[in-house]
Amino acid sequence: MSPFTSRTADSVSALGEEKLVGAIRRWLGSASPGAPFGIGDDCAVLPAARGRQLITVDPVIYGRHFDNDVAPRAVGEKLLKRNLSDLAAMGGRPTTAVLALTLDGRTSLAWLENFYRGLAACARRYRVAIVGGDIAQADGIVAASLTLLGRPSGRRIVMRTGARAGDALYVTGLLGGSLRSGHHFKFTPRLDEGAWLANRTEVRAMMDISDGLAKDLHALTPRGTKAALTATALPIRPGSDVRAALTDGEDYELLFAVAAGTDHAAFTRAWRKKFPRTRLARIGDFVRTLPPAALDLREFHGYEHLKM
Amino acid sequence: MSPFTSRTADSVSALGEEKLVGAIRRWLGSASPGAPFGIGDDCAVLPAARGRQLITVDPVIYGRHFDNDVAPRAVGEKLLKRNLSDLAAMGGRPTTAVLALTLDGRTSLAWLENFYRGLAACARRYRVAIVGGDIAQADGIVAASLTLLGRPSGRRIVMRTGARAGDALYVTGLLGGSLRSGHHFKFTPRLDEGAWLANRTEVRAMMDISDGLAKDLHALTPRGTKAALTATALPIRPGSDVRAALTDGEDYELLFAVAAGTDHAAFTRAWRKKFPRTRLARIGDFVRTLPPAALDLREFHGYEHLKM
Repeated sequence: MSPFTSRTADSVSALGEEKLVGAIRRWLGSASPGAPFGIGDDCAVLPAARGRQLITVDPVIYGRHFDNDVAPRAVGEKLLKRNLSDLAAMGGRPTTAVLALTLDGRTSLAWLENFYRGLAACARRYRVAIVGGDIAQADGIVAASLTLLGRPSGRRIVMRTGARAGDALYVTGLLGGSLRSGHHFKFTPRLDEGAWLANRTEVRAMMDISDGLAKDLHALTPRGTKAALTATALPIRPGSDVRAALTDGEDYELLFAVAAGTDHAAFTRAWRKKFPRTRLARIGDFVRTLPPAALDLREFHGYEHLKM
Repeated sequence: MSPFTSRTADSVSALGEEKLVGAIRRWLGSASPGAPFGIGDDCAVLPAARGRQLITVDPVIYGRHFDNDVAPRAVGEKLLKRNLSDLAAMGGRPTTAVLALTLDGRTSLAWLENFYRGLAACARRYRVAIVGGDIAQADGIVAASLTLLGRPSGRRIVMRTGARAGDALYVTGLLGGSLRSGHHFKFTPRLDEGAWLANRTEVRAMMDISDGLAKDLHALTPRGTKAALTATALPIRPGSDVRAALTDGEDYELLFAVAAGTDHAAFTRAWRKKFPRTRLARIGDFVRTLPPAALDLREFHGYEHLKM
């Protein structure tokens, strides 16, 4: 569905800001708490939070993250899930979100309603309160940026740093072909898995895969080591290949390092018991010197932002 | 200064994402704390906050909130100050911000550096930690959306609701001609004033003026009352007129209601002692029936978003 309409009566400009904000509150329904904890004042008030918080921000932009082929409900859902995936990667649970929307005046009300209904359904499912936002108008743009707040699920927050030489590399789910298969908007953020992993002290570092394993892996790789990956161990989505699994991006799976010396069989058994339906693959190790059989990652590049 | 360059070597696409993030950390300098409390992981970690928090989000978009005539440092500063003004309107103090950036690949590095240096200088001045963000690429867009977190300055958070019939209306500073005079990027957010007002129990409701007094006033006006404004009492910027003061917008001044029965002379004296350099004007009252001498606000409309 195109976000634009040529009929002014069906566009956001037919409503104007005040009525549009009213419509958005209706569309969000119970996903948006009442003032002062929700939409309607200069700021939203957040109830006191215990302990540390987590914060992340990610957008969806027409022409970049979605096009006319994606249903608007799926766009709203994807916006929240991209952020949830970042939170999962540190073992967090979501609490609150605010949304900055930029719309062309010709944006279709039907498109926008479905975008918000998709966002609201997803927010209810993951218990995220949409507490505020902003709407700006700009020609030719339909974009939304969501800031998500969360809390650690336990005592531990897992960072990208912390892995060491000898640690094993694991990945959840399947990699590659995300756009082709529709995974990029159908995926389930790995919140439960992330929370469980954060409470296992043998998990030393973690991140989510958004730009492709080959590129994202650099952030996890400790100085002085290399990631020795085994091609046959990669959990490749049916219809994809090694290159796609390494470079396609938008996988929204967790990549993590498990301490050297861990009883991997026991770790995997514990995982299977807890998450019988989420695939787990041990794909390699961090080593000082690459063995001849390891994949040469220099041949592969993940999604490069801002490169012509 | 135009945000775009035709020389690829001078553009963000010449750097690519990883180097660009490194450059942004340098440009932000001490305004961005080290990981895990800053840029560089899936989420940023926020230290535990005591009590309630405030959250707001506002963007700046090329072609809408700035153009080639505004210096990029001023754009960065304006982005943060717009949000600080929202916080001031509830009596809050800022703590933390995250930034979602959308850039065309041809965005000039020089423009972006100055944007960030302006943002960083402003963040240091107001003690805001820029803890994270996101960079997305989209053709023809240069836009930044900032989410600001804050805390109440005292026990009280002042909302837009709470005014009653008989309350007096006050406004800080001067109104009108914000764009023409450059006030829209030179303004000082009224954080000190907002904090002081929030701790005065006679101040019943407050907001900041961003879309023009005539429009914004609706949000403060209690049901069943009307705002009786005196034209001669309006603090009009030199070179502006009543219409400009009511409708231009981007004033970023505080508008608030003071309880009926207050000793206004004493209130004004206390203000002058505390803020000798910030003008304060009593511009009218909330009444049940408009007196003939009052301004007829139906003739004036503030800035209407999303109207063609």
